Amino acid sequence: MTTNGRYRVIIENVQPIVDNGLHPAKLTIGERVDVTAAIFSDGHDHIRAAVMYKKGKEGKWAEVAMKHTSNDEWIASFYLNEKGEYFFTVQAWVDHFETWHDGFIKKSEAKLDLKVELLEGVVILKKLSKNNPELISVTRKLEEAKYAQAIDLVKDENFSALVRANPLKEIVTEHGAEYSIIVEPVKANFSAWYEFFPRSASLEPGKHGTFKDCQRLLPRIASMGFDVIYFPPIHPIGKIHRKGKNNNVRATSEEPGSPWAIGSDEGGHKSLLQALGSLDDFKRLIAEAKKLNIDIAMDIAFQCAPDHPYVKAHPEWFMQRPDGSIQYAENPPKKYQDIYPFNFESENWESLWEELKSVFLYWVDQGVKIFRVDNPHTKPIPFWEWVIAEVKKKDPDVIFLSEAFTRPKIMASLAKIGFTQSYTYFTWRVTKSELITYMDELITSPSRNYFRPNFWPTTPDILPYHLQYKGENSFILRFALAATLSSNYGVYGAAYEFYENKPITDKEEFVDSEKYEIRHYDWKRTNRMTDIMTMINKARKENKALQSTWNIQFCTIENSNLIAYLKCTDDLSNIILTVVNLDPDSSQSGYVQLPKVKLKLSDKINVKLTDLITEENYTWAQEWNFVEVNPNKMPFHLFKLTVQESNM
Amino acid sequence: MTTNGRYRVIIENVQPIVDNGLHPAKLTIGERVDVTAAIFSDGHDHIRAAVMYKKGKEGKWAEVAMKHTSNDEWIASFYLNEKGEYFFTVQAWVDHFETWHDGFIKKSEAKLDLKVELLEGVVILKKLSKNNPELISVTRKLEEAKYAQAIDLVKDENFSALVRANPLKEIVTEHGAEYSIIVEPVKANFSAWYEFFPRSASLEPGKHGTFKDCQRLLPRIASMGFDVIYFPPIHPIGKIHRKGKNNNVRATSEEPGSPWAIGSDEGGHKSLLQALGSLDDFKRLIAEAKKLNIDIAMDIAFQCAPDHPYVKAHPEWFMQRPDGSIQYAENPPKKYQDIYPFNFESENWESLWEELKSVFLYWVDQGVKIFRVDNPHTKPIPFWEWVIAEVKKKDPDVIFLSEAFTRPKIMASLAKIGFTQSYTYFTWRVTKSELITYMDELITSPSRNYFRPNFWPTTPDILPYHLQYKGENSFILRFALAATLSSNYGVYGAAYEFYENKPITDKEEFVDSEKYEIRHYDWKRTNRMTDIMTMINKARKENKALQSTWNIQFCTIENSNLIAYLKCTDDLSNIILTVVNLDPDSSQSGYVQLPKVKLKLSDKINVKLTDLITEENYTWAQEWNFVEVNPNKMPFHLFKLTVQESNM
Repeated sequence: MTTNGRYRVIIENVQPIVDNGLHPAKLTIGERVDVTAAIFSDGHDHIRAAVMYKKGKEGKWAEVAMKHTSNDEWIASFYLNEKGEYFFTVQAWVDHFETWHDGFIKKSEAKLDLKVELLEGVVILKKLSKNNPELISVTRKLEEAKYAQAIDLVKDENFSALVRANPLKEIVTEHGAEYSIIVEPVKANFSAWYEFFPRSASLEPGKHGTFKDCQRLLPRIASMGFDVIYFPPIHPIGKIHRKGKNNNVRATSEEPGSPWAIGSDEGGHKSLLQALGSLDDFKRLIAEAKKLNIDIAMDIAFQCAPDHPYVKAHPEWFMQRPDGSIQYAENPPKKYQDIYPFNFESENWESLWEELKSVFLYWVDQGVKIFRVDNPHTKPIPFWEWVIAEVKKKDPDVIFLSEAFTRPKIMASLAKIGFTQSYTYFTWRVTKSELITYMDELITSPSRNYFRPNFWPTTPDILPYHLQYKGENSFILRFALAATLSSNYGVYGAAYEFYENKPITDKEEFVDSEKYEIRHYDWKRTNRMTDIMTMINKARKENKALQSTWNIQFCTIENSNLIAYLKCTDDLSNIILTVVNLDPDSSQSGYVQLPKVKLKLSDKINVKLTDLITEENYTWAQEWNFVEVNPNKMPFHLFKLTVQESNM
Repeated sequence: MTTNGRYRVIIENVQPIVDNGLHPAKLTIGERVDVTAAIFSDGHDHIRAAVMYKKGKEGKWAEVAMKHTSNDEWIASFYLNEKGEYFFTVQAWVDHFETWHDGFIKKSEAKLDLKVELLEGVVILKKLSKNNPELISVTRKLEEAKYAQAIDLVKDENFSALVRANPLKEIVTEHGAEYSIIVEPVKANFSAWYEFFPRSASLEPGKHGTFKDCQRLLPRIASMGFDVIYFPPIHPIGKIHRKGKNNNVRATSEEPGSPWAIGSDEGGHKSLLQALGSLDDFKRLIAEAKKLNIDIAMDIAFQCAPDHPYVKAHPEWFMQRPDGSIQYAENPPKKYQDIYPFNFESENWESLWEELKSVFLYWVDQGVKIFRVDNPHTKPIPFWEWVIAEVKKKDPDVIFLSEAFTRPKIMASLAKIGFTQSYTYFTWRVTKSELITYMDELITSPSRNYFRPNFWPTTPDILPYHLQYKGENSFILRFALAATLSSNYGVYGAAYEFYENKPITDKEEFVDSEKYEIRHYDWKRTNRMTDIMTMINKARKENKALQSTWNIQFCTIENSNLIAYLKCTDDLSNIILTVVNLDPDSSQSGYVQLPKVKLKLSDKINVKLTDLITEENYTWAQEWNFVEVNPNKMPFHLFKLTVQESNM
């Protein structure tokens, strides 16, 4: 027989959880958590429910009352403002005090005799009173009052408030399971990434860039408002089977090779390419960046060039073929002879795991706090789960970005098991309906509980068709979308800033890709894009509404070239309306609908708008308002809205 | 560190499960189970997966290969043909044999050198061979063949078949959790219920019916094709606060009272109302019914009249008020002074639970195998979970129908925790879109894994607005819907057969309800409804397609008054198309679309139809076909389809 058969309340479907609690849900400092559950009981008795939560296994439980929304769904919303692991659970109970009070009011309205009900009230109040002076006093009043007075006392609004404030917690159903939430640093959810190849950082054409050159670029990138600089791998580059320009299978002796072909006689994953500078140079760069609130994100690509020291030292970490050779990477019939993948099915997997973990820890020791992980979907998911947890044990602030452009379930799984942020399909979501559908998918549970998107218009690997041979306006509108739809976004830095748009024919790849050669950028130059990046990043920093991805609400606008969306803080103290023209060539206009309920607008609308880019001001007095976006002036509007007091 | 880091495959979202395995999924004998899961790994290697299942905890595992459908979803379908509890789980692995073979074929098409690949193939085959003569022979052939022959050998279709037939199971990921499925008797999923009040069973007007009268009605009901007869409570009826005709708070001394006010000085839940006859009479009735494949379903209403023996013997099972009285049922301000609910929060809950369990077991001992449980949502859900499991321990064939017309989550919860069948909202789903939406909800996971609907057009408690003052056609079309949409359905017997349609004004209740008085029916009479019930029940028995609720597929028909749906067996050997005219007054017509993919129809359509009611025959040679339904002839068509061989 059940331990205690008196529990009557059922608690089901507690959220936010990930795979029934197998993995923690993710939050960042300052974000709101909405704990929901289906809660119900037999009969008509009133039930009440609470979320219990604590910081860390050993923390003290705090309690937040839940509210019924509809259809037996309950919710409690609150903020978790400290970093680290939280635990929560739900409890619920039949509240006989509230049930009695509600019945009392209904019976009194029906003019029924309430003598016994008054006696029952006193019994309940005595149970509740204990040392509570207010309750003791009310109980005494009720006992001493004459019948009519006693009824008035119970019907009084003060008494209702007393019922609400004093739940009678008896026979409390505990949900049982405790679920975890991991609260991560702010940059996990709000970051602007600028990617460049350090070897292309020199101000002098034809010269191999160095960490010192990178350091000289810091003020430029900081003034543009970026807070993460991401470098492709900076380790020694394989010399055997080195790739030449445009992925040529043979490199000339002058060609620098691909940074992702890691390792040579000069060292491996814990070494730096000598041409870039010393470890001290790198550490100085990290420290200088830190002063500007910029993190240097390092690329972790767990694969080896044939001359990587691991190959000789640990041949058992690679797949041996029957002819004694080591298996290079392949996707039949394609061969990638410059890369040896690790064999994670090796009998010696433990030493392999430990070594790879030590790579992370080594760089954490040098001051690196952000890792962009290359192709994590080609290494076992259980390995990532383990190694991320291990690194976080050493430093919970470390951020991992999953560069997995692959099938949806695998991208999701990598996020579930610990990756802080993930690359997304945004790169290929172009039309209004594609963008809205994709955003809806991302911000809806269960995805929002674990998958933090990071939007990139291009990467060194991807020049999508819709940006090929396209001009400024296309690049600007895609930038504006990335930086305002998602609170995390990144750009393939100078290449994007300077509108690099030439593909290999029929491929979504750059021709003359920087992956295989050193490029020279005129880093002293700024242009229209530089200014827009700067202004949008400034707007993101100054407007809390833009610091979340989850708060987006699309607005109806009757033009399929125009996409409009609102982001607000919970308290509506900051409201941003973005309108982007998806047509880079022509001016587009339409009427956009203000979401009246969301903005708590009365019928007398009075909303002031300031375009944060052009600084133009408008006043809207209608639900539907005319908007025109001329891409040659600016491909988007970024409006800050102020709802005038009278309407609030 | 993870126990074994070499496992690379991830298995997620295994189905069918209920609340992550908290409760078993339900099946009945002969039903197909579709086990699905999301399964994926890193990289490009091929994976394979299997469902393992066994009968009972101690059973031997059987294995069924899963197939990839799309987007990393896998499925295995099979039939469980024995009653009882099954367990299943999923396992998956990277299959290096298949990966190697696929790579080999691609490389050979690209004319690459395959010498090392051939050596690899031999290594794998040797691993697999063990004592398998076929594999040993193929391995030898491959070793001995010259290069070109060896390549031809691997490229041969026989070799592909060998790869498919011989999975290389190494480093197998086990899902871990074992989920349970309960396989119940056929009547759990396929039953036709006929409800009547035994006290109204007499052939003589004005006389109190008896079990012997009921026995005389058996051939009539059996010949109509029903296989469950459900009786409202047959226990002694309370004399204190007995209700009169039309729920009058005072009964005259001649009035029989409501059967749901259970218990008097004559006995309680284990006694029979003396006027109905003896326990022997009842047992004889059960035995005679059994011979006609009819089960007598008993009503279990756990509540007491004030004079029920429990009230004196166990006052602690009821709520005591401060004035010493016992709390009657109420829904403030309404009072139900003829009913005392049990207090499941009693300190003595254990003795209460045991006693209520003993009520079930007592009647099981008398031969009752089906219980219709009255208002289970007004007693604690944990109690039902326990008592149903206890009763099933004694007799796993017992069927429980949940009479909970309440909020969706509570109805679902009762089904999850063990009720075999459930009353539904069908009673109020009237329009075409309402019916389609509701059916979709019922047949879709997760609902279909635990909630078996039982459709009732009316009950003694409910005369829905849409049947009030309505005539034959309305009653017939609602009957046809209930009996063909759902494989379980029931009717409030003679009242429905004879079109009882008069409500209390503005209520969905019968005026002069049989709940408070004895009715006389002319049981010798049959009418158009009697014939239709008989024919539809015959069609249900002769056509396997109608014996499931889950196999429904709605067909497009461009008339909102016409609803059309197909039910097929998996092998398409039995196909039924039902077309119902929702308009009881006028003939309606339209073109109905045959689902070509589902029926595997070629472009040259040749389908023969027989209307199982009118016996008329048609041939359809088009995808879209004209249908007319004249309600005054017959408010529906029930077509049996035969797809002519040439098209299959």
